Amino acid sequence: MIRSGVSPRALEAALGEFAGVLGSERVITDAEGLRGFRDPFQFATWEDNTASAVLSPTTVEEIQEIVQIANRHRVPLWTHGQGRNNGYGGPAPRVKDSVIVSLRQMNRVLEIDPDLAYAVVEPGVRWFDLYEAVQAAGYPLMLSIADLGWGSVVGNTLDHGVTYAPNGVDMGMQCGMEVVLADGTVMRTGMGAMPGNRSWHLYKRGLGPTPDQLFMQSNFGIVTKMGVWLMPTPEVYMPLWLRVWSDDDLAPMFETLRRLMLDGTIRMVPQVMNTVLYGAVVAKRADFWTGEGPIPDDVLDGMARQLDIGRWLMRFALYEDEAVADVKFAKIKRAFESAIPGAEVWGTKYAADEIPGIENPAEKIQGGIPNLDWNNMTAWYGGEEGGHIGFSPVAPLTGPDALALRDLLRGMVEGAGLDYIAGLLPVNARSFIHITMVIFDTKDEAQCRAAYDVSRRLVVEAAKLGYGEYRAHLDFMDLAAEQYSFGDHAYRRFCETIKDALDPNGILSPGKQGIWPRGMRDR
Amino acid sequence: MIRSGVSPRALEAALGEFAGVLGSERVITDAEGLRGFRDPFQFATWEDNTASAVLSPTTVEEIQEIVQIANRHRVPLWTHGQGRNNGYGGPAPRVKDSVIVSLRQMNRVLEIDPDLAYAVVEPGVRWFDLYEAVQAAGYPLMLSIADLGWGSVVGNTLDHGVTYAPNGVDMGMQCGMEVVLADGTVMRTGMGAMPGNRSWHLYKRGLGPTPDQLFMQSNFGIVTKMGVWLMPTPEVYMPLWLRVWSDDDLAPMFETLRRLMLDGTIRMVPQVMNTVLYGAVVAKRADFWTGEGPIPDDVLDGMARQLDIGRWLMRFALYEDEAVADVKFAKIKRAFESAIPGAEVWGTKYAADEIPGIENPAEKIQGGIPNLDWNNMTAWYGGEEGGHIGFSPVAPLTGPDALALRDLLRGMVEGAGLDYIAGLLPVNARSFIHITMVIFDTKDEAQCRAAYDVSRRLVVEAAKLGYGEYRAHLDFMDLAAEQYSFGDHAYRRFCETIKDALDPNGILSPGKQGIWPRGMRDR
Repeated sequence: MIRSGVSPRALEAALGEFAGVLGSERVITDAEGLRGFRDPFQFATWEDNTASAVLSPTTVEEIQEIVQIANRHRVPLWTHGQGRNNGYGGPAPRVKDSVIVSLRQMNRVLEIDPDLAYAVVEPGVRWFDLYEAVQAAGYPLMLSIADLGWGSVVGNTLDHGVTYAPNGVDMGMQCGMEVVLADGTVMRTGMGAMPGNRSWHLYKRGLGPTPDQLFMQSNFGIVTKMGVWLMPTPEVYMPLWLRVWSDDDLAPMFETLRRLMLDGTIRMVPQVMNTVLYGAVVAKRADFWTGEGPIPDDVLDGMARQLDIGRWLMRFALYEDEAVADVKFAKIKRAFESAIPGAEVWGTKYAADEIPGIENPAEKIQGGIPNLDWNNMTAWYGGEEGGHIGFSPVAPLTGPDALALRDLLRGMVEGAGLDYIAGLLPVNARSFIHITMVIFDTKDEAQCRAAYDVSRRLVVEAAKLGYGEYRAHLDFMDLAAEQYSFGDHAYRRFCETIKDALDPNGILSPGKQGIWPRGMRDR
Repeated sequence: MIRSGVSPRALEAALGEFAGVLGSERVITDAEGLRGFRDPFQFATWEDNTASAVLSPTTVEEIQEIVQIANRHRVPLWTHGQGRNNGYGGPAPRVKDSVIVSLRQMNRVLEIDPDLAYAVVEPGVRWFDLYEAVQAAGYPLMLSIADLGWGSVVGNTLDHGVTYAPNGVDMGMQCGMEVVLADGTVMRTGMGAMPGNRSWHLYKRGLGPTPDQLFMQSNFGIVTKMGVWLMPTPEVYMPLWLRVWSDDDLAPMFETLRRLMLDGTIRMVPQVMNTVLYGAVVAKRADFWTGEGPIPDDVLDGMARQLDIGRWLMRFALYEDEAVADVKFAKIKRAFESAIPGAEVWGTKYAADEIPGIENPAEKIQGGIPNLDWNNMTAWYGGEEGGHIGFSPVAPLTGPDALALRDLLRGMVEGAGLDYIAGLLPVNARSFIHITMVIFDTKDEAQCRAAYDVSRRLVVEAAKLGYGEYRAHLDFMDLAAEQYSFGDHAYRRFCETIKDALDPNGILSPGKQGIWPRGMRDR
């Protein structure tokens, strides 16, 4: 456990000043209030990542005052948009007794431009909110959204979160930011650095180096505004499905998929799910298996047939003029079905006005309609909502890499007595992220412990094979960062140099993604 | 003029040590040798940006030694790949008497992967070299290249240079870097920070903040390796042309183009040329106008008709399966021809094996075949090769913005007695870069002076309307950076903070894009 090191007296003084700025109703310090800001999946008595207070600013100026107070009292802050970083720590801070800066109340959609197809949002805006704002304005624009509609658009982006429509490829939809730095400076990136510039949210760079991605997965500033690219609603939105029946079909599936993404036929982010992952969305474990240990292969085969979801099921989509969609669909169907015996590709064409009526959750997600149905999967082991850790390495989009990662992850997760639950996301034509949902019952401390232990070991074992995490859980951030050790940890030292220069007192999210300020490095 | 401030004795000592590392044949100090590293367009007697020496390392280790020597003697370095930054200063340094680190001899293509469609190159590799390496290997891969094949792939990328095929959209083809920092540390970015990672050139990020774009248009490191995404040669490559006959047709052209790019019909970077720009590629000024001052409108109309190139001519292309190309071509033709009276769209379909035989230079460029034909335009005022300054603001991809910028730039350039020569590059669906080719005769000092003067004024006047440069000429870097003043120059202060932290002695390319090290800021 890493503690903030702030004395009770300094913390008290800081909290008094925070209340002076925000009013005491926007400074939470009571145990009941703070409970809502724990990692929701951490076992109840584990207290590594609990905060001492939660602040809820509503303006940029308030954030500027907060960082100045934090600097004076050396109080570590931890920021989130909505705090829905579930599977990676949720709203909780890396350092115990940090003061959380929750931006949930900074939730305005500041601008939507229907012609240039972008929006500008504050960090508390959820996918639900942005979708509703676009609908309310009546603009024919589609969003690229994450699986769960409750998350913050900004928060998801800053954690390198994946979205699925064409603008989600390579997480490319962010354009232009406003950031409060540790010293209270308000900086605008890209063209926004020029007062009155007309291209802040249209051109991704400025004159000089582009700092936007420096504020993602880091602790160098607090993002207060962000441009988000939208797309015109296509003539035809066509969600597609590919189903295969053998576990090893994953290899030819990925070989074929890569070619279809490289040549631009598929230009979005598919999601490739194993039987248990999609099974967990639509069913419960107890319907199929009540024995000891992970579900055996023959039971998985039966489950695949009974639910009609195959051993691997890929959700993907076309967003095209109808004539192009027809050509592409025929090509895609031919490609997969000729490469993989027993494979089937099917889909549904929706005209623009039919999209709001779509009911399948996956088809809604890919069509930009936020929902929460995907969250069902966490209740796999029973109850209302279970816990999960996301273990998420990146790999080349090839058949051999897909099988090598599957073998490693399935072997280790099942070795820990848990089911192997996999969602593979080809975020571009050349690589995929293997989201391993290490799901557990949060009320079962032994199962919690098993999940944490195997996730920790996976970090090291995957790295040995050349696969690194794209995003790390609070509890494994240091270990995951440790694997990126080229040149005697040149990259980490580079990040630390920037951290110390921008935030000499180390007040912003210490430990985030393994970046520690000077004063906390020799712990 | 800004001088290095290095004493002759310190410089001499450093040069001796450089020669000790490189051998004296790779340390150029004679006047004749140094002449090849001047800005080729600067008037002969202007000496603001001349170097004191040129070093030609061939290995990363030599670069590490060079920066260590430079640190000891406080000698400013200035790096280039090929030094073809023409229009923005060429190979020349910002600070007089800097030591140039020319990476022309680090020119190996380190890897080409035909399945995952990427290459890894050293900074001296030119478009010509990479093309030849791909051809020699016989891989069915297409490059996205710049207009002139002599440039460095890495150098162009680091200066935010534009390329035109699908991977050129938003300058998105770079993936993964190796960088030598000012202290001699070798850092690898993204997944490359993990030893043995398999996704260094496949996934654009790593764990933690992504620093790659911090090394573009900056002076924070020397890039020694870079991943470049290629694309599979499409079934059909179809270069297209759009010609319109009225100067104001630019507005509906851009409105239509934006929609066709937003919906994914056109997924590359077009180039929109006015009569003089394409005229300068294929003809000479004296054939049309020998009078005083800029070419009048009626002569431009005549030139447009005589050369059959219209008042605006757009080169663009499709890279698709043939059936998709046919659908898209019909849609594109209908869209432009119905929106603009007299507009014509035409094109040629080439199968993969026909591409090497293409002769039109624009069609070669968009098809990834490097050449130098586009350079003809600089001889517009006569002679073999003239000079030019690139004045290049960014603007929203809308009709009103296109006309507003045209009016400003045409008015001021013609007011200086020069022709308005414009190439507009929609680098994504929402914005374009207006490359203003301020062409002049390098032997005519008065015309040189006029070109420099008007370019300087343009920086300020464009900014007043909300348009900032995407890239600045050596002589206007500080002035261009000065316009990005939001928050009391928050962005510049941010860059300076990083500069001082990473390069406390200020040895790497001081002044690049307006970023000065601590010791040179109060000049």
